[in-house]
Amino acid sequence: MFPSDMPLAPDRGFASDNFAGAHPAVVDAVVAANVGHAPAYGADEWTGRVEAIFRELFGPRSQALLVWNGTGANVTALASLVRPAECVVCTESAHIAVDEAGAPERIVGAKLLTLPTPDGKLVPEQIAEVAHLQGNQHHVQPAVVSITQGTELGTVYSAQEVAAIADTAHRMGMYLHLDGARLANATAALGGTRAALRSFTVDAGVDVISFGGTKVGALAAEAVVYLNQDLAERARFVRKMTTQLPSKMRFVAAQFEALLGDDLWIRLAANANQMAAQLYTAVSDIPGVRLDRGPQINSLYPYLPAEVIEPLSRWSFFWNWDVAQHQVRWMTAWDTTPDDVARFAAGVRHALA
Amino acid sequence: MFPSDMPLAPDRGFASDNFAGAHPAVVDAVVAANVGHAPAYGADEWTGRVEAIFRELFGPRSQALLVWNGTGANVTALASLVRPAECVVCTESAHIAVDEAGAPERIVGAKLLTLPTPDGKLVPEQIAEVAHLQGNQHHVQPAVVSITQGTELGTVYSAQEVAAIADTAHRMGMYLHLDGARLANATAALGGTRAALRSFTVDAGVDVISFGGTKVGALAAEAVVYLNQDLAERARFVRKMTTQLPSKMRFVAAQFEALLGDDLWIRLAANANQMAAQLYTAVSDIPGVRLDRGPQINSLYPYLPAEVIEPLSRWSFFWNWDVAQHQVRWMTAWDTTPDDVARFAAGVRHALA
Amino acid sequence: MFPSDMPLAPDRGFASDNFAGAHPAVVDAVVAANVGHAPAYGADEWTGRVEAIFRELFGPRSQALLVWNGTGANVTALASLVRPAECVVCTESAHIAVDEAGAPERIVGAKLLTLPTPDGKLVPEQIAEVAHLQGNQHHVQPAVVSITQGTELGTVYSAQEVAAIADTAHRMGMYLHLDGARLANATAALGGTRAALRSFTVDAGVDVISFGGTKVGALAAEAVVYLNQDLAERARFVRKMTTQLPSKMRFVAAQFEALLGDDLWIRLAANANQMAAQLYTAVSDIPGVRLDRGPQINSLYPYLPAEVIEPLSRWSFFWNWDVAQHQVRWMTAWDTTPDDVARFAAGVRHALA
Amino acid sequence: MFPSDMPLAPDRGFASDNFAGAHPAVVDAVVAANVGHAPAYGADEWTGRVEAIFRELFGPRSQALLVWNGTGANVTALASLVRPAECVVCTESAHIAVDEAGAPERIVGAKLLTLPTPDGKLVPEQIAEVAHLQGNQHHVQPAVVSITQGTELGTVYSAQEVAAIADTAHRMGMYLHLDGARLANATAALGGTRAALRSFTVDAGVDVISFGGTKVGALAAEAVVYLNQDLAERARFVRKMTTQLPSKMRFVAAQFEALLGDDLWIRLAANANQMAAQLYTAVSDIPGVRLDRGPQINSLYPYLPAEVIEPLSRWSFFWNWDVAQHQVRWMTAWDTTPDDVARFAAGVRHALA
Repeated sequence: MFPSDMPLAPDRGFASDNFAGAHPAVVDAVVAANVGHAPAYGADEWTGRVEAIFRELFGPRSQALLVWNGTGANVTALASLVRPAECVVCTESAHIAVDEAGAPERIVGAKLLTLPTPDGKLVPEQIAEVAHLQGNQHHVQPAVVSITQGTELGTVYSAQEVAAIADTAHRMGMYLHLDGARLANATAALGGTRAALRSFTVDAGVDVISFGGTKVGALAAEAVVYLNQDLAERARFVRKMTTQLPSKMRFVAAQFEALLGDDLWIRLAANANQMAAQLYTAVSDIPGVRLDRGPQINSLYPYLPAEVIEPLSRWSFFWNWDVAQHQVRWMTAWDTTPDDVARFAAGVRHALA
Repeated sequence: MFPSDMPLAPDRGFASDNFAGAHPAVVDAVVAANVGHAPAYGADEWTGRVEAIFRELFGPRSQALLVWNGTGANVTALASLVRPAECVVCTESAHIAVDEAGAPERIVGAKLLTLPTPDGKLVPEQIAEVAHLQGNQHHVQPAVVSITQGTELGTVYSAQEVAAIADTAHRMGMYLHLDGARLANATAALGGTRAALRSFTVDAGVDVISFGGTKVGALAAEAVVYLNQDLAERARFVRKMTTQLPSKMRFVAAQFEALLGDDLWIRLAANANQMAAQLYTAVSDIPGVRLDRGPQINSLYPYLPAEVIEPLSRWSFFWNWDVAQHQVRWMTAWDTTPDDVARFAAGVRHALA
Repeated sequence: MFPSDMPLAPDRGFASDNFAGAHPAVVDAVVAANVGHAPAYGADEWTGRVEAIFRELFGPRSQALLVWNGTGANVTALASLVRPAECVVCTESAHIAVDEAGAPERIVGAKLLTLPTPDGKLVPEQIAEVAHLQGNQHHVQPAVVSITQGTELGTVYSAQEVAAIADTAHRMGMYLHLDGARLANATAALGGTRAALRSFTVDAGVDVISFGGTKVGALAAEAVVYLNQDLAERARFVRKMTTQLPSKMRFVAAQFEALLGDDLWIRLAANANQMAAQLYTAVSDIPGVRLDRGPQINSLYPYLPAEVIEPLSRWSFFWNWDVAQHQVRWMTAWDTTPDDVARFAAGVRHALA
Repeated sequence: MFPSDMPLAPDRGFASDNFAGAHPAVVDAVVAANVGHAPAYGADEWTGRVEAIFRELFGPRSQALLVWNGTGANVTALASLVRPAECVVCTESAHIAVDEAGAPERIVGAKLLTLPTPDGKLVPEQIAEVAHLQGNQHHVQPAVVSITQGTELGTVYSAQEVAAIADTAHRMGMYLHLDGARLANATAALGGTRAALRSFTVDAGVDVISFGGTKVGALAAEAVVYLNQDLAERARFVRKMTTQLPSKMRFVAAQFEALLGDDLWIRLAANANQMAAQLYTAVSDIPGVRLDRGPQINSLYPYLPAEVIEPLSRWSFFWNWDVAQHQVRWMTAWDTTPDDVARFAAGVRHALA
């Protein structure tokens, strides 16, 4: 029986980092950018400054294009790299494969070649195996490898792992795209410095990044960052074709200026990661909670007794992950507090007592 | 010779209504919506309230879907109506045909059948003429008529004109889409009331509207409004496929709540229209400025002496419209003031003296 | 060591039923149709007659559209059923998923949702499981189930199995497409009569069939057969959009008239099936040849000693199936003879001795 | 009144060159190719020989890919050249724009930028004018110029005209595609030699040709000929994706081997052209028949008295061209005879008497 005397639910639940609002500095920056007229479509000074900040992060040959959301960033990135009868190699759990309503297939016009993984991470050997499709005129030709960092399963590639994938991809004539909807969380997990960021992106040989801002404190701000300007040449047109060219771009740029300044985005992600670690500690000894592993970024995927899932999620909402396995997802956000963690863990413990 | 002693340029130029920022009420609403966690992807209370407000505007059978921009709204609307081997009938000057980087062809997967017009307005007779393509297996089948209200040429359809187009379209088995990137300006021009809005939309037989918020004071907020819920059934999935599903939707909804409340959007558009009328009065007697007609909404398309265009636009920026004809576009915004108009007109007069 | 004294290779190898030529009756029909002028694009008398023959096969409410190849038939069929943000459910080994160079994703504009199977056959339970995607706005919506009959793995659905799939699909609001590139072989396997054909198609609830002619003796002739005319309404336009509208259609129709008359297509397929059965008998006791099962239609998938595969296929060409598993494919055709089988089996036996 | 005593209609009408059958040599070649097994998908000896013949025609760096029809050839050619957010520049009367049911927009995923012409022929100045779109991020980027030779309006580009277009296209960074559905007729019109063919194709700077065989005596045979092999690199995959990879390709190759041998294709086209010239002579003095110009290839576009069009076309079928203008199309074929011309002209004369 689910207890009727549940403790107070946390102020901020563990459903999704998309449930969080925006960091005050982001909103302040938008308010501050709302002064008079400014050129549209990216010719404004805010966008100019943010493009320069991205070049500081990723080097002088990089080029960032601002967009609104992750699907838009991914589709813009892929459509600028893929030609007809080519395909994108990714994991079976990749966001582009599972959660973008077919936008890649429709807009990029390409098949996704999905490979199974236990942990959301591709390995070079899997990529090498698709070589047998190269030159086969009946099959789409592998053109891009797309990996997610941190992955949809809460794991993180090391810089060495990304570099090995990039090597394999490049040797096979493919590009490497990195879906960084949670790039901030991965960066925090791998050291939390700009050098760490560079180690698994530009230094590792990544060609283009979907750089996420929304989940880590923006209202709606993502970027497609080309680490090689040559690939960005046609990307401005592709962005518009993807419907992702903001007219009043200064307001997207202002969000990024706030987030990127003083590495706020990394610090916010570090908090989310830390709260996930605390949650893991707080629940891992609760009888009935089974966890395959501790969190590398900001999500846990616990298995719970079947009958407790629905009432517990009514108490403090979270999503199912794998219904058949009674597996759910608990996710922290940039604004999750130790008190939120403590209250949520207390509720879980009480419900399973 | 372009004079060196030009007067002070206006604070807000006449380049585009996209150069304007957001109305303070819109920004305030975003700030106010930034409280704690809220469900993502439209399950939040702000979105719920805005959907209800749209139903007040367009009737209980209507359904609004929030998106970020006009191209996104148009593509979502069209993709939910068009099937393979069908086409969209529109004017040669339609935004979907000229200024969306091929997004409709790519994402909708459809040809646009463009018809010439002197003033950006289709007439029923033109639409009727495409009937000879119906049933011709070599030709895409006309499925949707798309008109823009107010048009890309600054004109406005009367309610009767829209109704006649809707009748023709429906008799031919086609839907009617209305690209309302400047719906507010058209509404203001046709009376400025909600009844006026309804007269040329739901009452006239329009099937789906791209409802513009950005140009009239939002940061980035548009809606696809289905006047017949049945057509909206699959639209949620199409919106995601178009990359236009905002994760933190409350912030888009908040913008609309501010704009739609107390008809702010209409009043702001009315100001833009009025400023265009004032500008017309202020420049129409200047020798060298030739205008085909007075403005119906918020734009003028003057012909200027060729040599003055570039230096004048350097003084206060505006866009060319038709380079070969020395025609430019002057556009007012929701925040244009009488002083902006006076200063700009004075500069034009001085430059042409 | 591969023996140097291999016996004479068969006249007709076991590489593919696409390696076979056309049945003489088919070529004779093309020659006979080459008389003077005839209306193009299907308004000719040959096409009219063949459409009538297809109605005899599949009932008065059916409608056949002639095309050139299987990919064209599949894409035409699917594109006429699928709308934006929808998907097609099929097996991981489906021809549409593996061997059509991304044509479905590109032209239909849809994701393929591929499900694993041991034998190339979907079961209703698998289809039922995709129900959890229905209504999820982040996911393409399942619109069509596509099964292959006989399958790419040489198996055959019983009429009851197809009916159960159709029931499930229809209850879930989906259509059922049947890729019948080897429909003739399946028909022969299930009794070899028109009643048998109807039992697993129109009687079982299939909505649209890709009806294969090429592999069973045509030069290049396939048909998309809609069992419900309403679904065919827009298919003529879709066929043209898919590039599959033959201008001199009488020559495609003539091929089908020859094949369908007197059930020649079924008899030719029966021969292919029988030769595969003979081959199975002739090789199944050869040490080193491992077979999971006997053939249901016209293909075997033996595992061979790794070192013999390449030289044996140089002696009489055949394709690898799964390189990692040393599995190959041996396929019979409409014109394979007992002597071909005997010679090939003798060669295999000699090579493995 | 339409006369009741019309003379005997011609054996072969003037509706379309698609109404003609195949030349006997083509059918004989197909019959002859139907011997035993041969590798599928182009690895056969017939295809090898035809590819060599095409290299003789167009030079050692050229590469031909065989397909079934003109829409397939055009879409394959364009899809191998165009990337996302790019467009194809062509005439308003281009077959790709008017008669391919949106296949280019759908499969290539690109907008067609159509330009008006009086005679179906682009001029370099028109192409140069699209330069103002280059670099405009709101507009698809011009990537390919597609011209038709001979045109849909029965005219022919001179070699100099094609070269001037190629120069302009290349200077603007665009490719030149030549839709040669009636390449044979154009070749015949420009001298009827292989040197003539080369003068307006490879020598003029064309990048890729849709080489038509069907209208000039094939059953169904076209080729995409890349004059620069580098562009052909990915074309094999694109051909499959376009649904245009014939499995039993030897039968397409055999058709081309018959047509290309001894320049039969040019001689057949020359007959069609000559018959059109004879028809022009035979009808141009008939009162009521108005012709803007004599034929350059195999079609006339006469204006007729409105009331005679329908009964005359019932007597010997032909198509309307422009209903509003009472303009029709009379087209000769490779097999049209002087007797056909004489009888048809006599009928027209009698009907208009």
